[in-house]
Amino acid sequence: MTHNRQWILRQRPLGAVTEQHLQLRSVQRAIPAAGEVLVRNIYLLVPPAMRLWMNPQDSYVPAQPLGETMMGITLGIVEASNDLALPVGTYVNGMGGCQEWFTATAAQLMPLAPHPQVPLAAYRSVLDVQGLTAWAGLHEVCQPQPGQTLVVTAAAGSVGSLVCQLGTQLGLHVVGIAGGADKCRWLRDECGIAATIDYKAEDVGARLDALCPNGIDRVFENVGGPVLDLLLERINDRARIALCGMVASYNGGGTQSAGALMRLVTKAARMEGFLVRDHFHRYAEVAAKLQALVLEDKLKYRIDILDGLAQLPVALDNLFHGRNLGVQLLRLSPERGA
Amino acid sequence: MTHNRQWILRQRPLGAVTEQHLQLRSVQRAIPAAGEVLVRNIYLLVPPAMRLWMNPQDSYVPAQPLGETMMGITLGIVEASNDLALPVGTYVNGMGGCQEWFTATAAQLMPLAPHPQVPLAAYRSVLDVQGLTAWAGLHEVCQPQPGQTLVVTAAAGSVGSLVCQLGTQLGLHVVGIAGGADKCRWLRDECGIAATIDYKAEDVGARLDALCPNGIDRVFENVGGPVLDLLLERINDRARIALCGMVASYNGGGTQSAGALMRLVTKAARMEGFLVRDHFHRYAEVAAKLQALVLEDKLKYRIDILDGLAQLPVALDNLFHGRNLGVQLLRLSPERGA
Repeated sequence: MTHNRQWILRQRPLGAVTEQHLQLRSVQRAIPAAGEVLVRNIYLLVPPAMRLWMNPQDSYVPAQPLGETMMGITLGIVEASNDLALPVGTYVNGMGGCQEWFTATAAQLMPLAPHPQVPLAAYRSVLDVQGLTAWAGLHEVCQPQPGQTLVVTAAAGSVGSLVCQLGTQLGLHVVGIAGGADKCRWLRDECGIAATIDYKAEDVGARLDALCPNGIDRVFENVGGPVLDLLLERINDRARIALCGMVASYNGGGTQSAGALMRLVTKAARMEGFLVRDHFHRYAEVAAKLQALVLEDKLKYRIDILDGLAQLPVALDNLFHGRNLGVQLLRLSPERGA
Repeated sequence: MTHNRQWILRQRPLGAVTEQHLQLRSVQRAIPAAGEVLVRNIYLLVPPAMRLWMNPQDSYVPAQPLGETMMGITLGIVEASNDLALPVGTYVNGMGGCQEWFTATAAQLMPLAPHPQVPLAAYRSVLDVQGLTAWAGLHEVCQPQPGQTLVVTAAAGSVGSLVCQLGTQLGLHVVGIAGGADKCRWLRDECGIAATIDYKAEDVGARLDALCPNGIDRVFENVGGPVLDLLLERINDRARIALCGMVASYNGGGTQSAGALMRLVTKAARMEGFLVRDHFHRYAEVAAKLQALVLEDKLKYRIDILDGLAQLPVALDNLFHGRNLGVQLLRLSPERGA
C-alpha cells in the first residue's frame, strides 16, 4: 500500500459543488524528507468554508488552485518519522489536504494529547476550530451582558450549537434558529436552549417578535440572507452582530436588504466579521476550558461522520442542504492501526 | 403679521417625496406661555434624514406623525421672551419644525454666540451637526492611522467634504467619491483632496483600483448601494466602515450584494453605524476646534441656500438628485429684523 488518494479541484463551481468539479485521483504516497514526518489522515473536516475556498477570488486564504489537491483540515497520526519530537503514533492536527496521506514538518503540525474519555474526533471539531470560533465570536466580538437577548443562526450547527450553550451559561436569553424540528428539539432537550425557531416550518419574523419581546441585542450570524434581514429589523440600540459566516452566499449571488442594513445606522449598531486565525493565541486556554465542560457533560456536541474519502461530494451536498447533524467529518482511516 | 406657515406631512411617500405628500398651511402664530420664548426661524436644515423621518417605521427618532408639522432642525432668533435667560435678539438652534415660528422653553433651545467673521448659516451646518458628525465618524468610529487609505462617499456633501479635509489633515490618503466634475474639482482645487472619483462619469471600480493600490482601510459611508459593494470588495484586513447613512435606501427598496458583505468576514472587518446624538457630549469642544479651522481658512464648506419655506419640496428633490452644492438650507426670514 504505497498509494495516496486525493481530491483535486478540476473546475470551479458557480453554484453548488457536484462531482464534475472535483476529481479523485490516486498518486504515489510521498516519502518524508529529512526532518519531516508521514501522516496518515484519520479525520477530514468538511466545513462550509470549503465551498468558499473553491471560488476564484481569494477569501481569508488564497483561492484553491485548479488541478491541485483540495486544501483540507485534518487530524492524523504519524506513521513514519524523521523528527524525534514527533514519534510514530503521535496524533496531529494540520492542514493535511483532502487526501489520505501527507508529509509535513513539525512547524506545520500541532501534536494532540487526547483525553481517553473524549472521542478522538472531538479534537478536530468541538475542541478545535469550532470551539475557538464559538468562544471568540461570543466573548470577543459580541461581548454580551447577562440578561441580553442573543440570536444564533445555524444554531444546531457545529459552531452555533456551542455558541447557544456558552451563551446560556453566561445568563443570556438565547434564541436559536435552525432548520427542522429534529434540530430544534435537540437544541432544547439536549443542549438546554430556552427558545428555538425552525426556519423551515415557522414564520421567522413572527416567532422572533414573540421570543424577543425586548428586541435583539446580540446576533451570532452564520447564514446571512433573508433571516439576517429579519434580525437587523429587530435590533436594539448599540446591537452587535458577530459575522462568523454567511453560508447563504457561499454558492454565489444573493442580496441583503439595504433598508435592513440601514438599521445599523439608526440603531448605532456594529456588524463585525471575525476569523478564528486572529484568536489562535487563546487556543490552549480555550480548548482546556471546553474540554473541561465536555468532561462534565456541560457542553453537548454532535459529530456527523461519513466513511471514506470518496464521500466528500456527498458531505458537501449534505452541508449545504442542512442534512448533516453537527460537525461534518469524513473518516479516512481507522483511529488506530494503519 | 400673526400667521405662521408650516409644512405638514399629508401622506407618506413610498419613493421620492413630491408635492402630494406635503401640504403648506397657514395657522395662527403661537403665543409664548410663561417661561417660553417665541422664535422666528431663519434657517431650516434640509438633511437627507428628513426623508427617513417620513417613513412609517421609527428610525433614530419616532416616525413623523401624519397631519402634524414636519419635524425640522432650525436656527432662529428670539422675537418675544418670557425667560430672562433668553432675551429678544438671541440666536438659538432648536428643533423648530418646518415652519416660520415656534414657541419653546430654554431647555429645548441652544443659544448661539456667532463669531462676527463667520456666516450665521454656518452655525446650522458646518459648525453644528454636520461638523460633529464628520468628526465623530472619523475619529471615534473609523479611528484611522496616518498613512491609511480612507474613501469617503457623498464626498462633496455637507458631512463628506468635512471628513475629506479632516482626514487629509490627519495624514490619510483620502479618496472622495462624488457625482459630477464640478463637485470633484471643488474637492481637489478648493478643499485640497488628493484624489476624487466622479461616479456619474467614471468607472468607480477601475478608479478605486488605480487610486487605492494598497486597498481600502477606512470608509466613511453616506450612500450605500452599488458603490458600497465596490468598496467592500476592496477592503483590507481589519478595515472599518463608518456608516453615517445610506441615502440610496432612504427612498425605499435597494439591496446590497451578500458576496460583498461576506468580505466583512474574510477581512475580519467592522461596519458600524453611528448617530451624532451619541457624541453630543463633545459638541462644545468639537465646534470650537472646527470654528478655529474655519477662521484660519483651513476648513472649506459650501452652503446651498434656497429662499422661502415654500421651497422645501424643491430642496428635497435637489438633495436626492445631488443637485445641491453643500449643506442644503432654506432661508425662511432675514438674519436681522423681523
